[in-house]
Amino acid sequence: MSDLALLSVTEAADAFAKGEATAEAMVRACLARIDAFDAEVNSVVRLDREEALAAAAAQDKARAAGAALGPLAGVPMMHKDMYYRAGRVSTCGSAIRRDFVPSVTATVLRRLDAAGAIDMGTLNMAEFAQNPTGHNAHHGDCHNPWNLPYCTGGSSSGSGAGVAARFFAAALGSDTGGSIRLPASICGVTGIKGTQTRVPRTGVMPLSFSMDNVGPLTRTARDSARIMGVISGKDPLDPTSAPEPVPDYEAALTDDLRGLSVAVPREWFFESADPIVVATFEAALEVLKSRGATVTRVSCSSLRAIGTYVAVVSRVEAATIHANWMREHPGDYSVHLSGRLYGGYAIPGTHYLEALSRRGPLLRQFCAEAFAGHHIVATPTLRMRVPTLAETDIDADPEANWARHMAVSANTRPFNYLGLPTVSIPCGFDDRGLPVGMQITARPFAEARALMVADAFQRDTDWHARVPAL
Amino acid sequence: MSDLALLSVTEAADAFAKGEATAEAMVRACLARIDAFDAEVNSVVRLDREEALAAAAAQDKARAAGAALGPLAGVPMMHKDMYYRAGRVSTCGSAIRRDFVPSVTATVLRRLDAAGAIDMGTLNMAEFAQNPTGHNAHHGDCHNPWNLPYCTGGSSSGSGAGVAARFFAAALGSDTGGSIRLPASICGVTGIKGTQTRVPRTGVMPLSFSMDNVGPLTRTARDSARIMGVISGKDPLDPTSAPEPVPDYEAALTDDLRGLSVAVPREWFFESADPIVVATFEAALEVLKSRGATVTRVSCSSLRAIGTYVAVVSRVEAATIHANWMREHPGDYSVHLSGRLYGGYAIPGTHYLEALSRRGPLLRQFCAEAFAGHHIVATPTLRMRVPTLAETDIDADPEANWARHMAVSANTRPFNYLGLPTVSIPCGFDDRGLPVGMQITARPFAEARALMVADAFQRDTDWHARVPAL
Repeated sequence: MSDLALLSVTEAADAFAKGEATAEAMVRACLARIDAFDAEVNSVVRLDREEALAAAAAQDKARAAGAALGPLAGVPMMHKDMYYRAGRVSTCGSAIRRDFVPSVTATVLRRLDAAGAIDMGTLNMAEFAQNPTGHNAHHGDCHNPWNLPYCTGGSSSGSGAGVAARFFAAALGSDTGGSIRLPASICGVTGIKGTQTRVPRTGVMPLSFSMDNVGPLTRTARDSARIMGVISGKDPLDPTSAPEPVPDYEAALTDDLRGLSVAVPREWFFESADPIVVATFEAALEVLKSRGATVTRVSCSSLRAIGTYVAVVSRVEAATIHANWMREHPGDYSVHLSGRLYGGYAIPGTHYLEALSRRGPLLRQFCAEAFAGHHIVATPTLRMRVPTLAETDIDADPEANWARHMAVSANTRPFNYLGLPTVSIPCGFDDRGLPVGMQITARPFAEARALMVADAFQRDTDWHARVPAL
Repeated sequence: MSDLALLSVTEAADAFAKGEATAEAMVRACLARIDAFDAEVNSVVRLDREEALAAAAAQDKARAAGAALGPLAGVPMMHKDMYYRAGRVSTCGSAIRRDFVPSVTATVLRRLDAAGAIDMGTLNMAEFAQNPTGHNAHHGDCHNPWNLPYCTGGSSSGSGAGVAARFFAAALGSDTGGSIRLPASICGVTGIKGTQTRVPRTGVMPLSFSMDNVGPLTRTARDSARIMGVISGKDPLDPTSAPEPVPDYEAALTDDLRGLSVAVPREWFFESADPIVVATFEAALEVLKSRGATVTRVSCSSLRAIGTYVAVVSRVEAATIHANWMREHPGDYSVHLSGRLYGGYAIPGTHYLEALSRRGPLLRQFCAEAFAGHHIVATPTLRMRVPTLAETDIDADPEANWARHMAVSANTRPFNYLGLPTVSIPCGFDDRGLPVGMQITARPFAEARALMVADAFQRDTDWHARVPAL
């Protein structure tokens, strides 16, 4: 077998289960790529080399002893540096938590551990998960493996860049306004934000109680399905986690799109959109059609309200969560983050509650408009081509770069307010060689359907299989 | 049998079940008292005379046919004018809803109907349930049956005055900052606010999602136990209603207080308290002791924070709920209510979320301080003697009367923030012949214990049995 680091999650798990590769060999292959290339990419915050090798050896030993193997046994992973593991520093991308050692372990890490995954360490991210580009003044910016001066997308910058660079098979990201889907799209990998409340958040740094989601970035939809099957489902420690049973996501990956009706909203998602992005997205729709899907343009009158309310809710919640630090250590935040937080203290409680209380009605309205007779909604993950780090650096030049910085997440944010499960998959490259992504959104708790469509798309395309030259 | 209107809930239900009184005769006795005395008390907004007699006749007919009888069969009631019955006007004490006809019926009304209770109409209340005194500029003020120039307490003014005046056996009130317990205390009757989420709120006018409670005002704790048994428990239509099973509250009314430990907080509840109120309350504690209870003074350091946060939460929620009307019809509110609401629009969302997010920790702290080794907390329901309507009229003279108006609810509000079940029972009279009340507070979902203590107290006292001379 050639470079074991190139294996996807399911390939790595299969190779391990069949005895074709040891967990230790897979971890060493990943470490070798990190050692060779991460100096330029800067995706890794903390590399737990010895711990990863020890965990791999334990999996190898268990396998040799004939023990039952978990669905992720031997698979090398690293995670955004906001998933707490008791006793290990979790910086949350910040200076304030430079030395923060949590006393609890995130439920999702415990579930991945139990499934046999290998945790190799922690990944770069936007400071406190609060920008869509991947800039980080404390750890240094993360760079796009397809073209280093370009941004990775954020806030799960290291997760997107590292999966694209084949530093590990998968990574957890978090998504409050697009922070899984943006780095997935911009780095050319697959990422899923489940239905709001689908994946428990115990032991995860909070940003916005109403909008935060946990999910994986992977190379394939099948990989995301396997991980979602492991991490989803009610957690007694997280009262906000949904009690809905978790289906077998991989079993749902039939390739049959005959009769599938795809809705594409006319509003919002294409405003000021880059023509190359639009053309690439339209070509991706043709792939779905070639498998028997039909595409219908629909009108969703609620999108402008949704785009307004999402910011009110998340800004007030973020400002509340950061209130004590903002009083005591305002200078320890980057300029753009403290600027973003300050505004949150001036939003009246009544606006917050109005924005929150319209969430249910607007979700019903959106579903009635977008899903009436249609199974999924497809949209471009970004309206724009991937920008450079310099073009979106709002600490360096806020006036010039603010609008571009904010536009990055315009197409992802609505699905956080709506709480709808959404996958982003790579669907092509722009004229500068940077990836373009497509969002596939399903009804509440219909993750399986979104993953099924994404997987079918990946059977006919190889965008997800391309490896950046580093 | 003498005046059937004097029967308590359980007496009326028993008399009906045994065939000693027809439902029709009981309703007619109540109507006679209303006709005789309500011109002065002003507790009734809408008298459904014919509907009540028809409902009573139906109960009588069912009884004659040998049908199974509900636990409230034949018992005459009226309710605060904010419990919706489909097709019947519900003014909510306001001018804005003068002609509002709801299309749904409150779950609690449906449960009372199913238990056989007779609904005779709707009762006076503070405008949109938002003052603690019972003033109402639209329906006219409600007057205390013990002494007409004195206030009734609010916001469930008609419920307290009407039960005291024996116009009906029981009435629903609602309690967001004391609105059941205050009119209960001030009119000399029994009232209970259950644990937050205990009684469903479907079809009830909202004031504050986080603080609103439904509950009965009755003459005795036993009556309250019977009604709580009927109206409590999960309602599929109200996702905020608690799934906890409902115990048999009446079966819990043993008279045995031996070993009961009563905690009395040193802080907050006695600040600037009237000496006559304190002396009456202390004498009530002696009654509990004479049955074997012990009384311990405890220190509760969290009460000042609680007293602050409760107002932030309920004001922001009330301002949100009234936002559209305040934009479109501000002149339709009374002066003091619009003034109260305006302030709610200036409270930052972060303050609201901080106040709400400290609720759990402060509840744990209060329970650790007040319930460590103790079964119940006892406090005076009001710190002050019952004021007159003139002394607390803040439309007439806000400067002179504001502080007194606000002080009315000082001792009841903390238990809304804490969400703890609290009964108010009459425990004596002041030097002007107005009632004094005692609050008995239990741990979350321990309504049965609070009712048990209240019932035991009422076996040794007759304050609850006295009838005002009208």
